[in-house]
Amino acid sequence: MTSTLNRLLETFARIGATPDGGVCRLTGTPEDGGARARLAAEIVSRQLGLLVDPIGNMFGVAALAPSSQEAVIVGSHLDSQPTGGRYDGVYGVLAGLLAVEAVAARAAAEPGKAKRNLVAANWTNEEGARFQPSLTGSSVFAGTLALDAALGLADGAGVTLGEALAAIGYRGTADLSLAPRRYVELHVEQGPLLEEKGVEIGIVIGCWAARKLSLVFHGEPSHTGPTRMARRRDALRAAARAIELHHCLVELGGSGAHASAARITVDPNSPNVTPCRVQVWFEFRHEDAAVAVALGDRFLAEARAAVASLGVDIEIAVDERRGTATLDPHGAALTAAVARELGFSAMEMKTIAGHDALALNKRMPASLIFVPSHNGLSHNPAEFTDEAALDKGLAVLTDVLWRMVTEE
Amino acid sequence: MTSTLNRLLETFARIGATPDGGVCRLTGTPEDGGARARLAAEIVSRQLGLLVDPIGNMFGVAALAPSSQEAVIVGSHLDSQPTGGRYDGVYGVLAGLLAVEAVAARAAAEPGKAKRNLVAANWTNEEGARFQPSLTGSSVFAGTLALDAALGLADGAGVTLGEALAAIGYRGTADLSLAPRRYVELHVEQGPLLEEKGVEIGIVIGCWAARKLSLVFHGEPSHTGPTRMARRRDALRAAARAIELHHCLVELGGSGAHASAARITVDPNSPNVTPCRVQVWFEFRHEDAAVAVALGDRFLAEARAAVASLGVDIEIAVDERRGTATLDPHGAALTAAVARELGFSAMEMKTIAGHDALALNKRMPASLIFVPSHNGLSHNPAEFTDEAALDKGLAVLTDVLWRMVTEE
Repeated sequence: MTSTLNRLLETFARIGATPDGGVCRLTGTPEDGGARARLAAEIVSRQLGLLVDPIGNMFGVAALAPSSQEAVIVGSHLDSQPTGGRYDGVYGVLAGLLAVEAVAARAAAEPGKAKRNLVAANWTNEEGARFQPSLTGSSVFAGTLALDAALGLADGAGVTLGEALAAIGYRGTADLSLAPRRYVELHVEQGPLLEEKGVEIGIVIGCWAARKLSLVFHGEPSHTGPTRMARRRDALRAAARAIELHHCLVELGGSGAHASAARITVDPNSPNVTPCRVQVWFEFRHEDAAVAVALGDRFLAEARAAVASLGVDIEIAVDERRGTATLDPHGAALTAAVARELGFSAMEMKTIAGHDALALNKRMPASLIFVPSHNGLSHNPAEFTDEAALDKGLAVLTDVLWRMVTEE
Repeated sequence: MTSTLNRLLETFARIGATPDGGVCRLTGTPEDGGARARLAAEIVSRQLGLLVDPIGNMFGVAALAPSSQEAVIVGSHLDSQPTGGRYDGVYGVLAGLLAVEAVAARAAAEPGKAKRNLVAANWTNEEGARFQPSLTGSSVFAGTLALDAALGLADGAGVTLGEALAAIGYRGTADLSLAPRRYVELHVEQGPLLEEKGVEIGIVIGCWAARKLSLVFHGEPSHTGPTRMARRRDALRAAARAIELHHCLVELGGSGAHASAARITVDPNSPNVTPCRVQVWFEFRHEDAAVAVALGDRFLAEARAAVASLGVDIEIAVDERRGTATLDPHGAALTAAVARELGFSAMEMKTIAGHDALALNKRMPASLIFVPSHNGLSHNPAEFTDEAALDKGLAVLTDVLWRMVTEE
């Protein structure tokens, strides 16, 4: 017997479905627009108030306590990576919507209990696949990213986020006037810890730090045929050296850091011209912010030394440092209590991946709840969490939200 | 006093001009269309017959000997690299056109001398910057590349060469019915040898061999945050290792080979997804075909070994071997004689870069003549050859063509 949640997940998995069983719903594309339209219909059909703000964040408002100016917000994101799975983000949006529906029904059955309102949310461009940086909509809502700067972010073809949202009809004009009191997000883990330990609910109490370095390698264009090898200034060879170097630093350092170089652009990217401008997006992640920062510093120094003999200069285009953060301790305590009551095993953990909850935590106490992810596989079409595990997460979320809207 | 040739070069340098003084005229773009339209006007205004063939090759026909079914062809290409200079290709097209005009005038003044006809040509997509492989139009004309295959070549956005040519109005329907007897191409050297030796005319007697290996690295998509480092199968890290390895093989081998890895595509190329599919275009060039082939073999074996520990497989997408070739010895002898008569220093040499003359040499005896290139700089906006050197090349070309159309 399939739950409403799993039927809804099936429906959304068909929007932007890829042949390999995953989804591709990049922000501001027709697929994103299709998922948003379906979510809007689901919100309206549940008698929730629909709002779309200027950065395209979508809200479904349950006015549980009309005299209150406060709201608890629950949500996640509908956008995906190009190689996205069927659960990342969309699980939290749909579970959030169903939890709001359930809490609203209970509030109607128990009048006077709800002290504040409840809002389901879909945040724009969490993934940062088409537009960098990621966590865009939640950062604008949190006040840490200016709306104009966010709308002006350009994709690889020069289309801005503002234009892309307008094209799919989701550059809104409304604002959520309620004051956010708390935020809760339910997500698949995307790592292997819960599955390995056989635990059903992850209570995320904080996050790893990250240092994101986007470097530009400047060489010189020349003919790849007759130009003498010693005369070339090859920016791609320099970038290749730096990519291997940054992996070696992490591997040999023994710090347990995670590192990645996953995006690259090459100019002119013609087989017969020595590349003259190459940009690579590097990341170092560690539980200790000082380690991530130090790795970045060491990498920059060693990379410059490693490419100097190639006649290539390195320019720092982006040096973004995301510190560690402590998520809402009260939300964690409520989650632990609810899991215990429902008979689910639970453990505290930290998130290595970025989430909207981390961006929103800068404006309001935010909570993040994980369910297991098979083999820890994510940003992969084979991403999988079984139906029972998904439903357990929803059950916990619903009761946590009930407590948050009814407590003093 | 600027010559007609140099005034024409100035005019064409404004079509697709880049702010840094170079040109960008990729095949089938509006800039290519603009240069073609201007060439068509120059052809027609000189009372030459204009033909455009189905792959977009343009011909300006001087009917010097109407009873003959033969023609000598002279030409080069108007397309450029994205970081193209003002001389590469366009010099040979415009010098060819002016030489045809001069030979036609002399033939009119000396009736009965011309034994065959003379044709100025612009070959489609010599550079291979937007569509691979390069030398497209000349290879179709030589009969070594099927027209349908050439028209179906797709650029990075999926637009075919046929569509791009149709869009600018240069997918023609005519065919050059004359039988090609010889081909001659005048070009800037793109290397430093003539300048270093102080020689005015390069007589190209052959070419280096090349092995072009386009390799696909297959990894697995995963989240760049929580996925354990040992669990990742990173195709970009594997490609980076292979890029550095292929340069080291050439550097340390001491063979004097030239090598390049200048084009790369990455999927999904998102900062937060471990790259799962990366394609790199590698090249090895050497005077001895066996050395180029052996380098490629050794590279493939070592690259596979180097990336195996990363869980990445290597697929060979393209393995193209261009052998050495001997260009037209008769054309070389004529060029040497003409240079001597005109009082220009000349030397025999080989070309490392590909040229339409090499593709056409498979159907007809082809000659290639170089003039010096300052610092050997090419595929670079700073490419430069002075006016006097350009005019010397035109003078040699004109007399060589006169001999070729008048000899028995």
